[in-house]
Amino acid sequence: MSKYRHIQEEAYETNMQLPKLGLVLFTFGNVSAADRDLGVFAIKPSGVPYEDLTPDSMVIVDFDGNTVQGNLRPSSDTKTHAVLYKHWEKISGIVHTHSTYATSWAQAQRDIPIYGTTHADHNTVDIPCAPPMSDEMIQGNYEYETGFQIMNYLQEKGMSYEEVEMVLVGNHAPFTWGKTAKKAVYNSAVLEEVARMAYLTEQIRGDVPRLQDSLIKKHYERKHGPDSYYGQ
Amino acid sequence: MSKYRHIQEEAYETNMQLPKLGLVLFTFGNVSAADRDLGVFAIKPSGVPYEDLTPDSMVIVDFDGNTVQGNLRPSSDTKTHAVLYKHWEKISGIVHTHSTYATSWAQAQRDIPIYGTTHADHNTVDIPCAPPMSDEMIQGNYEYETGFQIMNYLQEKGMSYEEVEMVLVGNHAPFTWGKTAKKAVYNSAVLEEVARMAYLTEQIRGDVPRLQDSLIKKHYERKHGPDSYYGQ
Amino acid sequence: MSKYRHIQEEAYETNMQLPKLGLVLFTFGNVSAADRDLGVFAIKPSGVPYEDLTPDSMVIVDFDGNTVQGNLRPSSDTKTHAVLYKHWEKISGIVHTHSTYATSWAQAQRDIPIYGTTHADHNTVDIPCAPPMSDEMIQGNYEYETGFQIMNYLQEKGMSYEEVEMVLVGNHAPFTWGKTAKKAVYNSAVLEEVARMAYLTEQIRGDVPRLQDSLIKKHYERKHGPDSYYGQ
Amino acid sequence: MSKYRHIQEEAYETNMQLPKLGLVLFTFGNVSAADRDLGVFAIKPSGVPYEDLTPDSMVIVDFDGNTVQGNLRPSSDTKTHAVLYKHWEKISGIVHTHSTYATSWAQAQRDIPIYGTTHADHNTVDIPCAPPMSDEMIQGNYEYETGFQIMNYLQEKGMSYEEVEMVLVGNHAPFTWGKTAKKAVYNSAVLEEVARMAYLTEQIRGDVPRLQDSLIKKHYERKHGPDSYYGQ
Repeated sequence: MSKYRHIQEEAYETNMQLPKLGLVLFTFGNVSAADRDLGVFAIKPSGVPYEDLTPDSMVIVDFDGNTVQGNLRPSSDTKTHAVLYKHWEKISGIVHTHSTYATSWAQAQRDIPIYGTTHADHNTVDIPCAPPMSDEMIQGNYEYETGFQIMNYLQEKGMSYEEVEMVLVGNHAPFTWGKTAKKAVYNSAVLEEVARMAYLTEQIRGDVPRLQDSLIKKHYERKHGPDSYYGQ
Repeated sequence: MSKYRHIQEEAYETNMQLPKLGLVLFTFGNVSAADRDLGVFAIKPSGVPYEDLTPDSMVIVDFDGNTVQGNLRPSSDTKTHAVLYKHWEKISGIVHTHSTYATSWAQAQRDIPIYGTTHADHNTVDIPCAPPMSDEMIQGNYEYETGFQIMNYLQEKGMSYEEVEMVLVGNHAPFTWGKTAKKAVYNSAVLEEVARMAYLTEQIRGDVPRLQDSLIKKHYERKHGPDSYYGQ
Repeated sequence: MSKYRHIQEEAYETNMQLPKLGLVLFTFGNVSAADRDLGVFAIKPSGVPYEDLTPDSMVIVDFDGNTVQGNLRPSSDTKTHAVLYKHWEKISGIVHTHSTYATSWAQAQRDIPIYGTTHADHNTVDIPCAPPMSDEMIQGNYEYETGFQIMNYLQEKGMSYEEVEMVLVGNHAPFTWGKTAKKAVYNSAVLEEVARMAYLTEQIRGDVPRLQDSLIKKHYERKHGPDSYYGQ
Repeated sequence: MSKYRHIQEEAYETNMQLPKLGLVLFTFGNVSAADRDLGVFAIKPSGVPYEDLTPDSMVIVDFDGNTVQGNLRPSSDTKTHAVLYKHWEKISGIVHTHSTYATSWAQAQRDIPIYGTTHADHNTVDIPCAPPMSDEMIQGNYEYETGFQIMNYLQEKGMSYEEVEMVLVGNHAPFTWGKTAKKAVYNSAVLEEVARMAYLTEQIRGDVPRLQDSLIKKHYERKHGPDSYYGQ
């Protein structure tokens, strides 16, 4: 049996969660699962419908984006995954979708403002929307540059990838990550719901105030702080 | 068999209704069922996915918030439930969700105006939205204070918890209650639908008039009055 | 076997369509099926959840609203159904729901403008919204008066119940009807979709023009005219 | 066995995809599949509910709109399909639906602006909305003229049917096409999602900028260009 079997199964199972959670139409999304010791990740093959996926079909790729094992072509977003794994040493799962509400915020090129505790349970900041890339980056090694666009924007905002596990790429769509592929999928579903609620909140009231700092701090710390006790 | 088995089963069955009714994503909600003679309630354990719940996993807690039976930690909202049971002697069920539309109204910090008979069948008043809590309350015993914030706001508005069985907590999300856990779940689903319709109504017409008093009275009394005859 | 069995079965089957079509939450709706020769209709019992309905549980009521057979109380909207059957001799099915979009238009007290051929396939006119009833009508025999409010408004607008098989009751919700209960259910689903599209159309463009007359005429006649040939 | 069996099965299977993808209510849609060598297409019969369809019930029609085989009447939109097949020699599948968001844009008589890469993956241009037809065209051979309205508008805009495989007909609804019926159904689902996202994007931000040219070019070419490598 392949020494990559465990991440192939992890990638398979988490990819199959995307349609169940209503986050993808057809093949508009992909999940990868990494084994950092082996220095590789398993990712969805390109253009294969979810119902035809199997663990074996997951392609093994190294952190420079080279295919290590697999007969199928890896997802066209593979280089973006590779760049993030290479530079962010504590993540082992990445998800990319075109989920409806998060993508609409990305198309509007707006950060998602923090309006309530559902958001604060997962992030202390507005969910960042990286600006659209420059013509040079797009015409160059596009998917590779997408990874750098994400990293640079988080750095510019002073955000740590360990704290903020989700981003919108302007005009494109969301990326999320985490310590496991499962956590990254969880983050994608949370992001979509937070995006939907923020949209509705602004429709219900034109001048919504940002969440007060004490509530942001309380909710985030009860879930993530050293004395965390959260769980509904 | 445990003497708490009946409320564990009731709490289990009503918790399982939340995902079926589309009111929760992942574990973003909880139901409790009380036995007032025994002075305790059964509540969802913290952070356990709905598909892994069993009646046995429901935690037994007294009205001061102390765990009486159970190996798992009770929901992080347990103290809010405890406060409400302690002070409102005629309720035996409480539900907390982050359902999409009700939560969006809470984030907008607005009462839900009474625009039609679907609302009036269940409430004669706008659904109250308690203001966000003060920094002091948040930094203190947060979940405990949330219960008081709810009680104080209903009192300030001159509303009885026996008449108005639902509230939004500003910036947070809805709580509902009732004489049974089943009724409290019913109230959560009704609130979500009323919140959705009020949102759409304001989108369709900028200056919607409030429902006329005679219609509020008629609909509420045909369902709840001494000569009630309602049922569709 | 009861001589009413055929309409009980018809009412049962059409009532069961409402949750399948997403038109009702809990028991917020009802269908009746009439036998005009026998001068009675079968209608959903009051307050019984859809999953507990059986053909036997359908209550038989005459066109004056008197229960002829059945142990359960008929739907609280029964008198509205009775009034319409009594005065509109060519209908044998009536549906009342609180479906989300149609009810939101009713709450906004607006006719649904004719913006496209989906609407024109079923109606040549804006879908009428009867104004909220007067305090006197509400405080009197409310459900009975609701029937008259509907009939009077159609008459005032110069509309025939044989041409226009749907109406909104202002601040309340939609009623639809037809030559059969099945057709009335079909009309309820069409109304909900037309209401949803009209809402979205106005959001997409602030000053939507009404559909041109030639297109209204063409679409309606290809479906309903003497030389009808429609069917997608 | 009929020599048309292969396109009957193809038309049957693709028609059955429409309700599964949430693109139709009742019979509000139709798919056809052509065999260009035989010079005919198989299309849904008129007014038959999806659950009653069989491969045998698909009607065989030639490119002038004459029925070649079948006891049922073909879809009322058949002449529109025939005109498009006759003039566009490289398509073998056509879909017409009244899907909610695409139809709402058609009712608003607006092209769908290109706001993101989900759109750009499939089209380099705004999705065209042909203006409502003239009274003369409507009163004449309506469905036949609908085909010409679509063709003329694409020509006027300088668009090739091989590049742009989808259109809105003003006040009516979308048509899509492709080299196979399956591809045409795929296009219908993509169009509906792109329409939904464009609507949400404009709600989230009043002055959304159009997608930059370099990103349009990149996304379209990675999927459709000579060196295409796309697949998520």
